Amino acid sequence: MSEADFIRRLRALATHPAARELRDDAAVLGDLVLTHDMIVEGVHYLASDPPGDVAWKLAAVNLSDLAAKGARPEGVLLGFPLGDPAWDEAFVEGLGEALAAFDTPLLGGDTVSAPSGAPRMIGLTAIGRSAHAPDRRGAKAGDDLWLAGRIGEAGAGLAIARGAEGPPELLQAYRRPRPLLTQGRALAPLAHAMMDVSDGLLIDAARMADASGLALAIDLDAAPRSPALTAFAGEGRAARLAAATAGDDYALIAAAPSEVSQAIEALGVGAVRIGRFTAGKGLALHDHDGSVPVPERLGWEHGGA
Amino acid sequence: MSEADFIRRLRALATHPAARELRDDAAVLGDLVLTHDMIVEGVHYLASDPPGDVAWKLAAVNLSDLAAKGARPEGVLLGFPLGDPAWDEAFVEGLGEALAAFDTPLLGGDTVSAPSGAPRMIGLTAIGRSAHAPDRRGAKAGDDLWLAGRIGEAGAGLAIARGAEGPPELLQAYRRPRPLLTQGRALAPLAHAMMDVSDGLLIDAARMADASGLALAIDLDAAPRSPALTAFAGEGRAARLAAATAGDDYALIAAAPSEVSQAIEALGVGAVRIGRFTAGKGLALHDHDGSVPVPERLGWEHGGA
Repeated sequence: MSEADFIRRLRALATHPAARELRDDAAVLGDLVLTHDMIVEGVHYLASDPPGDVAWKLAAVNLSDLAAKGARPEGVLLGFPLGDPAWDEAFVEGLGEALAAFDTPLLGGDTVSAPSGAPRMIGLTAIGRSAHAPDRRGAKAGDDLWLAGRIGEAGAGLAIARGAEGPPELLQAYRRPRPLLTQGRALAPLAHAMMDVSDGLLIDAARMADASGLALAIDLDAAPRSPALTAFAGEGRAARLAAATAGDDYALIAAAPSEVSQAIEALGVGAVRIGRFTAGKGLALHDHDGSVPVPERLGWEHGGA
Repeated sequence: MSEADFIRRLRALATHPAARELRDDAAVLGDLVLTHDMIVEGVHYLASDPPGDVAWKLAAVNLSDLAAKGARPEGVLLGFPLGDPAWDEAFVEGLGEALAAFDTPLLGGDTVSAPSGAPRMIGLTAIGRSAHAPDRRGAKAGDDLWLAGRIGEAGAGLAIARGAEGPPELLQAYRRPRPLLTQGRALAPLAHAMMDVSDGLLIDAARMADASGLALAIDLDAAPRSPALTAFAGEGRAARLAAATAGDDYALIAAAPSEVSQAIEALGVGAVRIGRFTAGKGLALHDHDGSVPVPERLGWEHGGA
């Protein structure tokens, strides 16, 4: 049984409409938004990564799923295998920093013993509430694609974490991403579809188009770039493609009809129009020089229900 | 940092009243009841255990926490590390059987890759609703201790799983425990305190007494025993002590004032009075022969927030 088979079988158990066929960032049950993410040592982080940053990221990843559904966090539950005391202590400290930064209480969870030396698998469940939780499957032909937040900075930060010289703010974008909760809540009531960008702008935008049964054209020049990113990674087409296919940014993308463009700009959340959905299928790219060949690798491909 | 220290530090992040100081079976946020349990290969189950039973038990353990708060399940989220395809397939099948048996949909979750050969750590979050979710800290002096469900059968089933000769219904009680959801919903409105018995009647009842700041006396003869358990394990004081200190039963215990005794009996959920809370501290045991020395080991001691 392949991973795709496994998820297909899970989907057969997920017939409740709240499950959204396991195709969305989160489950949506009435006004409740529920998400669970797990990180694995040696897969999602390295044993040598600072444990406080691992905890921060686990919280940020889950809260970003809430942001993508326009939700205000109500709290989180932690599933944690006890191991090295110093590591565990630093993990709790980082978790506390993240939960304080995003005003989210720890509500419960489970701590368990683990076989000595076993790679840690840590789970976090986040619960939030949203009066209007846009589905990633809801884009309509003619909608604009909006981007809130910046892309490519975490990818640059990863290169810095691996030894490249670069500004600390890019490393911070990788180590301590900030879920766009305020932006998500502002955008949700105006959006036909919304999701977070965790695996790369191109791959996640293509997923939204695919889930909505539409084609999508993206203007590579439209995503804003910070001076730090431009200084570190340059400015040309290759640099923009690199930013659009790097993961871990936790920006938000939303599909919205042109009637609400002014309303979205008036929100003041820094959302910019970067593309347009049309009838059809597939992803097309362009920039000021014209059409851009779609790269073979659109972002991080991995498992995930 | 010891495990107790770790939980103390988590508790410092769990200041929201919904967290119940991480001392209850579940978090209670308005009418929402939220719980997360994790099981670890080599700790909570053996790699050689039938994967369908592992899945069933993970679901049952979480749903039992909902039962203990009088909640009706709304759904579950799964955190699952992909591994051996045959094992994973049998796991999903068992999960489907449990969720169907307890009328609970899968709402979402996460599947992740894991390093080859790493012990699995599988998490499940269960969400339910309860109009009245009794706290385990709520027993009052003068309350009776009630037991719904049977004790000792899963312990006998474990011995059978390990090779002893015995009836299949006891093995089933161990492999496929049934959370007492109906009983929990019926008892909750009448109970001052309620919790499930997962680590052994004596240890869990002592925890309720301790959390409520009370002493507790238990009549060892009062817990009902099935003919199968009596045939397998005998009937005397030693057999009753063994049943009262065995884990994995997922019975419910509740504290309730004598004014509601008739109402509890009229529920028809098979709850029986087995003890009484009084002012003071500590656990005392008696049976038809008089006072019974409290055993040193009251049940399973382990970590858990």
